[in-house]
Amino acid sequence: MGRWEPGADSRLREAAIELFLERGFEQTMVADIAERAGVTARTFFRHFADKREVIFQGAADLEEWSLAALEKAPATASALETVEVALDATARLLGGDHGFARKRQAIIESSAELRERELIKLNSLSARLEEALRRRGFGDLDASLAAATGIAVYRVAFERWAGAAEDGDLREVIRDTMIHLRALTAAE
Amino acid sequence: MGRWEPGADSRLREAAIELFLERGFEQTMVADIAERAGVTARTFFRHFADKREVIFQGAADLEEWSLAALEKAPATASALETVEVALDATARLLGGDHGFARKRQAIIESSAELRERELIKLNSLSARLEEALRRRGFGDLDASLAAATGIAVYRVAFERWAGAAEDGDLREVIRDTMIHLRALTAAE
Repeated sequence: MGRWEPGADSRLREAAIELFLERGFEQTMVADIAERAGVTARTFFRHFADKREVIFQGAADLEEWSLAALEKAPATASALETVEVALDATARLLGGDHGFARKRQAIIESSAELRERELIKLNSLSARLEEALRRRGFGDLDASLAAATGIAVYRVAFERWAGAAEDGDLREVIRDTMIHLRALTAAE
Repeated sequence: MGRWEPGADSRLREAAIELFLERGFEQTMVADIAERAGVTARTFFRHFADKREVIFQGAADLEEWSLAALEKAPATASALETVEVALDATARLLGGDHGFARKRQAIIESSAELRERELIKLNSLSARLEEALRRRGFGDLDASLAAATGIAVYRVAFERWAGAAEDGDLREVIRDTMIHLRALTAAE
C-alpha cells in the first residue's frame, strides 16, 4: 500500500486527458500519465484499472442515476416521455463541464477502441431503459422502440453539444433534438 | 493450394451454425467446424478469416447494397424517407431466409463478442447513411438524426422479425415499426 496522495485522482485525470490529446490515446502509456501527474504507476492503478477507465469512469454510476430518475417519471408519461426524463437527468449530471466533455469527445472520436467502448456503453443504457419501461407496464415494442430512439436522440444531441465551440446547456440540446425528431417523423 | 471443393462454403456455414447452437460460439473451434463439414481446417481458412466471419460475412456487401439503394431514392423524399428506402433494400436482401436469420440471431444474442460486433456493424451503416444524406444536401442535424433513428427502427424491427416463431416479411415488419415510431413521437 502506498501513501495517501491528496488530489491524485484529478491530477491523473488531467494528465491523461492532456497526453491523450497531445500524443493520441494509443501512444500514451500509463507510465507517461503517472509521470506527468507526479505520482507512481502504482498510484495510477489504485485509481483506475487501465488508461481506458480514465475516460469511462463513472459510466456505471451514470446508468444507475439515469434509471433512478426514470422510476420517478409521472405514471401518466408515455414511453418516450419516460425515457426523456431519464435522459434529462443524465444531462444534468454530465452537462456541467463543457470544457471537459469537449476534450473527452475529441479523444473518443480519435480512437476506434474508444468509439466502440462508448457505443457498447450506450447500448447497455438502452437495454436497461427498455427493461425499466417493461417493468412499468409498457409493451415490448413500445419499450424497445422508445429506448432505442431515445438513445439515438441522446447520442446525436451529445455530439452536437460536445462538438459546439460555445458553451451550451446539454439539457436544452436534448430537448431541441427531440423536437427535431418529432418534426422529422411528422413531416411525411 | 488445396483442391477445389464444391459446396465447401455452404457446408462450412451449416456446420458452423449447427455447432454454435449446440456447443456455444466460444466453445466451438475452427477444427470442429471443418471436421463436421468434412473438410480440412485449411479449407475453412480459404473461405473465412475466422469463425466470427461465418456470422458476419456479407456485411460489407450489404452496406454497399443499402447505399446504392439510397442513391436511387426520389429527390423529393425527406431525410427519414430516404433512409427508409435504404432499409427496405437491406430487408429485401436479408429477409429471404427466415430460418437462417432466426438461428443467426440466437447465436449473436448468446455471445457478448458477437453482440458487440453486430452493434459496430450497424453503427458503421448508420455513419455511411448519414454521410450519404449530407451529400444529398440534408443539413447535419437532419442527416444524423434520420440515420440514427432509422437504424434504431431497423434494429428493433430485425429483432422482432428474427425472434418471431412464424415466418414473416422483414420489409413489412420494418414498415410497421416505422409507423409505430410515428405514433410514439406524435402521441405527446
